[in-house]
Formats: sequence, structure tokens, C-alpha cells
Amino acid sequence: MRAVDLIRKKRDGHELSGEELGFLIRGYSEGSIPDYQMAAWAMAVYYQGMNARETADLTMHMASSGDMIDLSSIHGIKVDKHSTGGVGDKTTIVLGPLVASAGVPVAKMSGRGLGHTGGTIDKLEAISGFSVELDQEQFFAQVNEIGLAVVGQSGNMTPADKKLYGLRDVTATVDSIPLIASSVMSKKIAAGADAIVLDVKTGSGAFMKTLDDSIKLAKAMVDIGTQVGRSTIAVISDMDQPLGFGIGNALEVKEAIATLRGEGPPDLAEVCLILASHMLILGGKASSEEEARGLLQAKLDSGEALNSLKRMVEAQGGNAAQIDHPDQLPAAELQVEVKAEKAGYVESIQAEEIGIAAMLLGAGRETKDSVIDLAAGLILHKKIGDSVEAGETMAVLHLNRVHEDRLEEARSKVLEAYGITESKVPRRPLVFALVTPEGIKRF
Amino acid sequence: MRAVDLIRKKRDGHELSGEELGFLIRGYSEGSIPDYQMAAWAMAVYYQGMNARETADLTMHMASSGDMIDLSSIHGIKVDKHSTGGVGDKTTIVLGPLVASAGVPVAKMSGRGLGHTGGTIDKLEAISGFSVELDQEQFFAQVNEIGLAVVGQSGNMTPADKKLYGLRDVTATVDSIPLIASSVMSKKIAAGADAIVLDVKTGSGAFMKTLDDSIKLAKAMVDIGTQVGRSTIAVISDMDQPLGFGIGNALEVKEAIATLRGEGPPDLAEVCLILASHMLILGGKASSEEEARGLLQAKLDSGEALNSLKRMVEAQGGNAAQIDHPDQLPAAELQVEVKAEKAGYVESIQAEEIGIAAMLLGAGRETKDSVIDLAAGLILHKKIGDSVEAGETMAVLHLNRVHEDRLEEARSKVLEAYGITESKVPRRPLVFALVTPEGIKRF
Repeated sequence: MRAVDLIRKKRDGHELSGEELGFLIRGYSEGSIPDYQMAAWAMAVYYQGMNARETADLTMHMASSGDMIDLSSIHGIKVDKHSTGGVGDKTTIVLGPLVASAGVPVAKMSGRGLGHTGGTIDKLEAISGFSVELDQEQFFAQVNEIGLAVVGQSGNMTPADKKLYGLRDVTATVDSIPLIASSVMSKKIAAGADAIVLDVKTGSGAFMKTLDDSIKLAKAMVDIGTQVGRSTIAVISDMDQPLGFGIGNALEVKEAIATLRGEGPPDLAEVCLILASHMLILGGKASSEEEARGLLQAKLDSGEALNSLKRMVEAQGGNAAQIDHPDQLPAAELQVEVKAEKAGYVESIQAEEIGIAAMLLGAGRETKDSVIDLAAGLILHKKIGDSVEAGETMAVLHLNRVHEDRLEEARSKVLEAYGITESKVPRRPLVFALVTPEGIKRF
Repeated sequence: MRAVDLIRKKRDGHELSGEELGFLIRGYSEGSIPDYQMAAWAMAVYYQGMNARETADLTMHMASSGDMIDLSSIHGIKVDKHSTGGVGDKTTIVLGPLVASAGVPVAKMSGRGLGHTGGTIDKLEAISGFSVELDQEQFFAQVNEIGLAVVGQSGNMTPADKKLYGLRDVTATVDSIPLIASSVMSKKIAAGADAIVLDVKTGSGAFMKTLDDSIKLAKAMVDIGTQVGRSTIAVISDMDQPLGFGIGNALEVKEAIATLRGEGPPDLAEVCLILASHMLILGGKASSEEEARGLLQAKLDSGEALNSLKRMVEAQGGNAAQIDHPDQLPAAELQVEVKAEKAGYVESIQAEEIGIAAMLLGAGRETKDSVIDLAAGLILHKKIGDSVEAGETMAVLHLNRVHEDRLEEARSKVLEAYGITESKVPRRPLVFALVTPEGIKRF
């Protein structure tokens, strides 16, 4: 078998067998197939696509290119959740405790943030003492004991995906649905979950800008899950504006705590309930969304969901008092209001610009080596559909003096991010579609 | 400027500016743009193509990536000829002396053969003592003195094209008309000719299998020549069977000598007259094909054309007696007849298979480091349209004993190459179309 023949085969629109895809991925991992051949192959895939079988085979070859986590020592059906990435997305911090309190074990590996998007691991580190580094034995034991653990990725997981993703990033071959789908799913499968709930963001602040593309990506990922025997469903949720009000690590933890208390932003609370419902269904703890929502609401109302977060924080060395008293979480020295320049209605909020503003204030990493300011970020006071008076506060920037030199730049970004119009603007739906192995349901 | 953005631009079907193409080619030559980015770009070009302006800009950037030969010290209009490659194509050895004898200076750089195609330089080395290594001063002086020199490529010509071609070969991006056209034309332009006659082969033994593709490639190359101010025309000639009868280095020199004597195979003689006519027109020595043919025929009849070859051989240290007495050229120890297994008419001859048979007998290089057996090769006794009796000689294999172990394989290749049918087969046309800056003329 020669790589050049497989590139040509895909170039000409033919299907590659599982064996052929394995040859490519193994060869690329081991270094016998060079970057330039994989780059040409990826560009051919960009144009010719891959069918569901090819995509699933590629996924499994990437998943098995490194460590495969075996979660079988954890009791119950392990349901993972994955979001395609957004600004202000703190759902994991709400969902983990919420579904754990309802009896679904959550053994979650999360990532750090880069650029305008945050990472769950960074956010949890806003809780003083919280450690994301557990060894596998501790990780499994904690989930068996309290139902929940969130840790950073360790070991050598999906090295083929990492290598291929790095290559795609510099060869303009990122925007390929089968390649995106297989990259996401290879990581989920290597992480060992039995079932997967995907939160595919759509809109200006999402990787997928249109609903059609978001549904295509969701379908590709659900198809992979189905082909490889992992129950998978996808919720298509809005990212035409940030989720909730807070952006920034400690600010998002505070908002997650409020949501677990039943006092969170309505959009965040609702998206969490929807995602959690599906996790309960896949985890075998409910047979319908209605039943799941009833169960989840009870866990919120009784305080058991919040308590689950506290137990995790304690188990991982964090200061649980900060959960009861979120004012003890890191707070910034300065709070600066961003005021509206004209009256009207909020028509759009460019989530990416908001994410960049938060990064400028210190909340995110400009490069892999940047140090995060856990207290920094911003709170939106206006969201799409809200009316605004001239001079009214649109958002409040939270920053420490060390980042004061970026203040004006951040303020401009926030003002630019808001689209204001004269006529009334309807609220946006939170969820647009549900993609399951049975089909696509649009709302 | 970033390479990834230029890849994306081409991927999405947009035009790249001359500056952008220069950035890519310079960066690739210098090593600041890696192979994998050029591979992705080449695959994007494979799908999206390039317009005439882009193709011409790419060509000039590749031409100027290394030495540009300045032929201005040679008097007259320098006309170069290029063939897209075929089996049994010894036209350069006929054309050089023929057009030189008619007053068009020929300063020709040629290549060596690889695989199933031969190279002019190898063929000329069948003449004992003939040296293809002249320094530039000797080269120019010889052309000024006797009107003709054929040398090997020296120095550092079109390194960007060499690097890119090597990459395309292993990334399934060879078959792109703008990339093929710019590769060929960059070499011709760097070689310094004022005008270029292209012999674009078409048919089963050619790189371009269909007439339409051959015309597209010819048009792309003529467009480049026009854009960069070099008069260029292309003849589309047949390569559905080898040209002439002889394949192999000394055998082809013998056939070229016979053709210059007016005793060559009719197809070879006719293709040479057509190509030479166009070289005379571009060289300003004739104003029509009729006039050119009259002049060329006179040079053949008077022996001046053959004499021109002898003078070149002498000037380059070769044994000119071998031109008068071709039986003194290298001859193989064995001549083995390949006999027809059934009667009928020759319907097809797979030129590539014939080329491989000759290579097996020692006439060609299997790898870059193979040593050529100058005497080896084969003579076809039957061509398309000929009738064949069972047991009649189809071809004669010429080989030295050292290659006897490949004899049976070569014989099978030759037999397989011939397609025999029961019904009469018409002769094939030699030339299908003429592509000039004014348009396409099909015959």
C-alpha cells in the first residue's frame, strides 16, 4: 500500500477502506507517512468528503492511536458531554453536579482555553486549592464514591488526532465536517464514555455559522457514535451571543453556582436542563425529557445538585466554602462600566469579540504560554432583544490594574460586539434542533 | 502574508495575485514554506485550477527561482522545441540539424530518460565520444559557428519547479493542467528561447490520454508563452503508438539519421517536417507552412540537414563517421524476433508497454542510478493498420547477453502491447490539432 495511491483514490472521489485509513493514520503517527502526504489527503477530503463508514473508521484509528481510557471499573452508564465551543459556556460546571446528583456517574476530562474561548479546567482552578490532576485510580475511586470528578487530560490520548489537527490548522483543511467530527469523537471515544451528549453550537460565535452546517456536523458525529456502538445524541444550541452573562473564569464559576441554586441566567439554566435531560435519558435514569426535567428540578430545588459540586470541590482539594460564599472567589480590583452610545434594541452580540475582550482583560490565553488572570472578565448586562437607553450600562469589565493598559481596547471590542437597532428585536431560541440516531428534529 | 491564508483563498476558488504566488514560490524555494503547505495548495489547485494570468505568474516565479540562461549573444531568433514525452520520440535529433540547416539557430538543452521514456541526451551519447557537457561559452560559440548544439542541463535551473514537481509526484497532484503547463514552460523560459514549438502528445502512450485534455494543456502552455512575450505554438501529435519503428538509444539515432537521409519511417518524417515548419515560421525563415516545407525538403534533399548533424557531432567530440556509417554505432549481441500468435490487423500498440519492454532489455533506467545499455531496444515491424499473419515477425528485440534474463518478460510485454483484431483498421492521423495564440485548429 502506498500513501500516494490512497491520496489519489480519495482525490478522485472513491471510498477508502478501514484498512486503508488505518494505514494512513498509523503511518502518520509513526512518521513513515510525512506531513505533506497527509496535507494533500486532508485537502482531498475537504473537497470529496467521507461517508459515515469512512468517518467512523478514521475516528476509531485516531482513538486507538494512543491511550484508551477504560472506565469499566466505574459503576453505571458513563455519559460524557462535549460542546463544540463557545463564549461564556460554563455548562460543564453546572451539568456535572446536576446529573451526578440524579445518579448518572460523571467521569469528565476537560481542556484548557485558548484565544477567545475558555476551558472548564481553567475555570475550576478559580476555586482555591482545586486540583485537576488526579491519577487514574483516584479519578475512578472519586467517581464511584461521590459520582463526579472533573480532571485535565493526562497521558498520551489521541496523538494521531493532535498531529493531524495541528497540520490541518496550517493547511486550511480545518473546515471539513468529517474531519471535525472524527477529531471530536476520537477524543470522546478514547476517554471511554458509554454514551455522549453533544452540544453543537450554531451562530456567529460558533465554529459552525449556519444551522444547516451545524446539523450536518451533529449528524456526522451522531453517525460515528452509532457506527461504533456509543449512544450519541446532539443538541444544536445558540451561540449567536454568549451563554449567560458572565465571561471569565471566577465570574463563570459564580454564575454556575447561581444556576445550581436556581438563580442563574435563564438561557444558561434552560440549556443546562436540556443537556442534562438527555444525559439522564442516555444514562438510563429517565425515559423521557419530561421525566428527566422533573427529576433534575427536584435535585436543584433540594440543594442536592449544589451539594454535589461542593463534594467534588472538597474531594479535589478545593475550598468548598467558596461555593457557599462565591464572594470569596477571586475578584478583580477594578469594575468598569461600558455604556451605550445610543438607544435602541440589542440585535446581535458578536460572541467572538466578547471573548477577545475578556482575553485582553486577562481572562484568556493569547498564546499557549500566557498566564490567566482568574478574576478578570466581564459581565454582560444586555442580551439580544433587550432595550437600551443611551448612557445605560451594557456590560461591566472586571480587571486587575496590571491589565489596565488593555482597558480601552477591551471597551471598544465590547461596544463593537453589540449591534443596536431602532426596532424591537425578538428573543432568539436557545435550541434549534435535536439530532439522534433516529433522525433530525427541528424546533 | 501567511501561506495558510493563500491556501484557503485558492481552496475557496479565488484568484491569487502575482505577489501572492511569488510569496509561495520564493518561500517554498527558501524553505520558509514547508512541503505540507505546498502540498495542500497544490491539491487546492488540482480542484480549483488557475486562470491564464495566475499560471503565467507561477511560471515566471518558477523560471526565475534559479539560473536564467541569456541567449542574446547567439545571433537570430532562438526557437526551442519541447515534447511532452513519448516512446520512440527521436524528433529532436532530426529537428535540430534540419532547422539549423535552414538558418534557425538551435541552442538546445535536453534531459535524460527515466522509466519507459527515453531522453535525447542519452540517445546522443550512443555516438562514441559525443559530449553533452559544454560550458556556456562553448555552447554559445558552437551555435554561432555551426547553428546547432545539444547539451545536458547544467547549473541550477528552475529549482522551485524541481522541488514542486517532486512533491506533486508523491501527493497525487501531478494531473493538473495549470501545474503541468507552468512546470514545462518555466523550464523553457529559463532556458532562454525567444520562441517555443510544443509537441503535445495525445493518446494511450501519452501523459494526456484524450484529445480534449491534450488541447487544454496545449492552450494553457500557449497562453503562458503569450502572456510572457514568447511566441509559442503547439502541435497535438499522436502517441497512441510509438513514433517510428526503433526504440532504444543507438536504434533511435540510426532512425534519426535515416530520416535526415530521407529514408526514415513515414510517421516520424512527417511529424518532424510539421514541427520543423513551425520552428522556421517562428524563427522568421518562412511565412507559411508551404514555404517552410519547401525549404526543409530542399535541405533534406541536398544533404545539408544530415551534414548539420555531422558538424554538431564533430564539434561535440563525437565520431562523425558513425553518422555516415550507422552500422558502426553500438549494436546488440542478440536479435530476437517476436512472432504474432494469431492473424489479423494491428488495432493498437500500448506505447508505454513497449517502452517498458525496451527498458527491461537495458535501453532505459528503472531507477535514476541505472546504467543504460546503448545498444539495447527493439524495432517494431508492425504498426497500427498493418495486417499480420500468424507467426509473422511483429518486432525484433535487440539485447546483450547480460540482459537475457529479462528477455521473456520483454517479449510478453511486446505481445501484450499489441492489440490485434479481425477487421481492417484505418491508419491513425499523425497530427490532430494546432494550437496558436489565435486559436485552436483541429484537423
